[in-house]
Amino acid sequence: MPEALRIIPLGGLGEVGKNMTVYELGDDAIVVDAGLAFPRDEHLGVDLILPDVTYLRDRERPVRAVILTHAHEDHVGSLPYLLREVRVDEVWATRLTLGLVKSKLDEHGLLRAAELREIDPEGGPLQLGAFRAEFVRMAHSVPDAVAVVLETEAGRVLHTGDWKLDHTPVDGLRTDVGRLAEFGNRGIDLLLADSTNAERPGVTGSERLVGEAFRQIIPQRQGRILVASFASNVHRMQQAVDVAVDVGRKVCVVGRSMRKNLNIARNLGYIDMPEDALIRPVELDEYEPGQVLILCTGSQGEPLSALVRIAYNDHPAVHVERGDTVIISARPVPGNELRVHDAINQLAKLGAEVLHQENAPVHVSGHGHAEELRTMISLVRPKAFMPVHGEFRMLAAHARLAEEGGVPPEAIVLAENGSVVELTPQGARIVDDVESGVTFVDGLGVGDVHDVALRDRRHLSEDGVLIVVATLAGSNGRASAGPPELIARGFADSGPLLDEMRDEASRVLDDCLQQNIVEIKLLQEHIHDGLGQLVYDRTGRRPMILPVVVEV
Amino acid sequence: MPEALRIIPLGGLGEVGKNMTVYELGDDAIVVDAGLAFPRDEHLGVDLILPDVTYLRDRERPVRAVILTHAHEDHVGSLPYLLREVRVDEVWATRLTLGLVKSKLDEHGLLRAAELREIDPEGGPLQLGAFRAEFVRMAHSVPDAVAVVLETEAGRVLHTGDWKLDHTPVDGLRTDVGRLAEFGNRGIDLLLADSTNAERPGVTGSERLVGEAFRQIIPQRQGRILVASFASNVHRMQQAVDVAVDVGRKVCVVGRSMRKNLNIARNLGYIDMPEDALIRPVELDEYEPGQVLILCTGSQGEPLSALVRIAYNDHPAVHVERGDTVIISARPVPGNELRVHDAINQLAKLGAEVLHQENAPVHVSGHGHAEELRTMISLVRPKAFMPVHGEFRMLAAHARLAEEGGVPPEAIVLAENGSVVELTPQGARIVDDVESGVTFVDGLGVGDVHDVALRDRRHLSEDGVLIVVATLAGSNGRASAGPPELIARGFADSGPLLDEMRDEASRVLDDCLQQNIVEIKLLQEHIHDGLGQLVYDRTGRRPMILPVVVEV
Repeated sequence: MPEALRIIPLGGLGEVGKNMTVYELGDDAIVVDAGLAFPRDEHLGVDLILPDVTYLRDRERPVRAVILTHAHEDHVGSLPYLLREVRVDEVWATRLTLGLVKSKLDEHGLLRAAELREIDPEGGPLQLGAFRAEFVRMAHSVPDAVAVVLETEAGRVLHTGDWKLDHTPVDGLRTDVGRLAEFGNRGIDLLLADSTNAERPGVTGSERLVGEAFRQIIPQRQGRILVASFASNVHRMQQAVDVAVDVGRKVCVVGRSMRKNLNIARNLGYIDMPEDALIRPVELDEYEPGQVLILCTGSQGEPLSALVRIAYNDHPAVHVERGDTVIISARPVPGNELRVHDAINQLAKLGAEVLHQENAPVHVSGHGHAEELRTMISLVRPKAFMPVHGEFRMLAAHARLAEEGGVPPEAIVLAENGSVVELTPQGARIVDDVESGVTFVDGLGVGDVHDVALRDRRHLSEDGVLIVVATLAGSNGRASAGPPELIARGFADSGPLLDEMRDEASRVLDDCLQQNIVEIKLLQEHIHDGLGQLVYDRTGRRPMILPVVVEV
Repeated sequence: MPEALRIIPLGGLGEVGKNMTVYELGDDAIVVDAGLAFPRDEHLGVDLILPDVTYLRDRERPVRAVILTHAHEDHVGSLPYLLREVRVDEVWATRLTLGLVKSKLDEHGLLRAAELREIDPEGGPLQLGAFRAEFVRMAHSVPDAVAVVLETEAGRVLHTGDWKLDHTPVDGLRTDVGRLAEFGNRGIDLLLADSTNAERPGVTGSERLVGEAFRQIIPQRQGRILVASFASNVHRMQQAVDVAVDVGRKVCVVGRSMRKNLNIARNLGYIDMPEDALIRPVELDEYEPGQVLILCTGSQGEPLSALVRIAYNDHPAVHVERGDTVIISARPVPGNELRVHDAINQLAKLGAEVLHQENAPVHVSGHGHAEELRTMISLVRPKAFMPVHGEFRMLAAHARLAEEGGVPPEAIVLAENGSVVELTPQGARIVDDVESGVTFVDGLGVGDVHDVALRDRRHLSEDGVLIVVATLAGSNGRASAGPPELIARGFADSGPLLDEMRDEASRVLDDCLQQNIVEIKLLQEHIHDGLGQLVYDRTGRRPMILPVVVEV
């Protein structure tokens, strides 16, 4: 009997973000995608969130290959951290993905941490240890996305990556439905498929629709035009550039990550624009507002991004005034809505007309809706199905689509991060789970912020902090206390309340000393409890109270 | 020449929430609406946000009347706080609004703070000091909403309140377009109109559409059905109850505010349901899941609400399992998206099918879209126009609609909270501004949390706090320092770093003493700066550093 294939998602299940899936057969392991997630509001002070790769770090042999399906941060963003922690032989990606990833690894000084190799989606199969890997071109909101087919003696798995069924993509490279059907005919034992839009009915629009909207909007405008989108959205940039060139506007790219990506994409031939169409930000002053189109970052309202600095009149090169048009060509990621709204309001105050997905067709999703997901299931006709890439409700909706599409309910695997799914000729099922979770990046530290620090930060953020410093003079075995000092921060204190608290702290201390309680920890606990009660009675709040007793 | 009418918005402009507008003529003042807003994430630890009513408190004479257009929190929620701070002769509202407000005032012990009087929308005009007030029935997502017409010798103003053009409202009480047209014919000098959906094209759906969706969904289901909506959404409750009664399900209401509102609405005749249709939560166990429909609060994912407790299996009376259906009949208010998503995911994990506005037509907005706002402008044909009730971008979009509708650009007033708009026979214009802003409610305190405390809380929440306590023994004019004590909270500290910081604090102290720097404030500053630099170099973070130097 052949060995079982073990499939272990370390991220991307029960969430949108930090996608990472481990495939293991015997001693060989392959990792598909190495993404990161952005912190939510409760992750106070955290900059980035990575998958916990303890499981991979504990392996004896290096990972045979990391395969990256496309260049979005939620699929490639944790690669530098992974390469620091885990030995990896090779990283495989298509040309553009590799170009963008190389520049990222270069910044981290990690260009030599693994061998970087290019996937040719039209090329033949690769043998990666016990795995035979093949690729299928998929349309998505970044060019050069692929699905991965892994063939092993335990079965054949298709992993879609992010995709949509765009019949008129900007680069002409459609999702290769013919090849998907071919794999369906060969027989797919397990399909792992993108669930992001499983709850949305119908089909998502073609990327080309955004170009058509640009073509309607841009020629009519007199003032500056700004187009904000994700820095990786090469198609979006191309479409804006095309219209700008047609109407004779110069293109200026603002925002470090977008400039970098545009350069890489141009050098690799993924963006086509005449050399003289591009001007630098410092040259903007030489042109009338009606002669320029500015591509910029900040479509998520990120605090230090180009668009937000422009909106608050804080950008050195770009300012916005009455008559200008700002196109926000993106959808706010859940949690970013208010920041995007703030930016729109500021831009409207400056007099700009702001077009965004709620009032103009300037964005389409890169993820297929329900009918497209049904099409995938029909093309591939998998024996077993495992929805990935989505919050639980999306996975559950995708599971319903699979069941309606003919996959037997018992062959549908609703896994979580850390689940160990075993594929054998008998089918796929969860057999175990391994350590998984999140690693926080905070400032320069990776993984050194833990839940207790976050809990403390949350407590501090709600009610502030009150510090009580008391001095204790010991003599002849008896102690006497000096007047305590109080410091309040983030706590809505009033003078009289502070005085009352100081008196209370004195009283508690004296009481303790009377009873011969001189042990520092005990004294601190008494002060903590006494002041906590007083503050709560007076204000209904519970600041963090930190008593310090100093013996002199 | 007649005296000018002064119109002063104290809330609701540049925001959605805490609506309040002051109308003044000579010594007489009327306030339309007294709403509150809910805190955003940056308002750490704040419970509620009220308009700053300093301007009203400083008046010599009492406010003649507060007129409430409808019973939503963003229009009535700050009334108890207003009545505590400001003398008010009368509060006027329609029957249901008054019923709901009375219960709120009763809880605050404020039933006698002002005379409560009922508006009859079909009745004749009221004389309120220098103001003649008339009312127009408006359709909205809570029954008994009205627009207010204030006639003074300086001109006639129409204030819409919240409204939509629902031709088939659940209670049959449409927006009274005939009367609006009548006022248009009489002549309106200034229109203040709800801008919430000015950016959305077309018209909003009728409330009845939600009932039709309920009628499609509910009869097909076998398990429990939960319907979550705003506690004030009486029409929504009525429509769910109607279908429940038709299919023979008992209705159970869960959540304190919804039970209270349902009772008041039933007693006043705004909800029609047979007595035996209603069961109490403790009786739920006596019925099969397929025999009940549960109305509950929590449609915004509020942490302690019924729906969220149910989702986390933490509700004493209701639990959800496979086969149940949860209908979230509301749209998340911006900022609440993630909390609502979390609740949906938890419910999906319990096995429920969750229907919400993204996958089923179970919600319509209570605010008219662009075409409805255009209709209002056409009916009223105002001489001047002032968009209210919305973020700046919504006000700007509404101003564009007014201009397209024939209001001259110079007669459109884009005001802010605190603007003083003067209406004279020559038109409306901003002439001044007064103190305005926000008052935070935090725990038991009203208005005692200020920006500096919030800034501190934000700082604490990002990087935590580090407290350094050093003791200083002075003798013979020279001082020597004991070893400092360090406390870190919410700060990702490691033992070695703490040791290094302790050494650094010692070093800084000794250096200072060598140089005869013994002034406490100076010592603290040196410790603060030295440790700050060290921590930043080592970790890239900037915790709040609080040095305490104790002299003994």
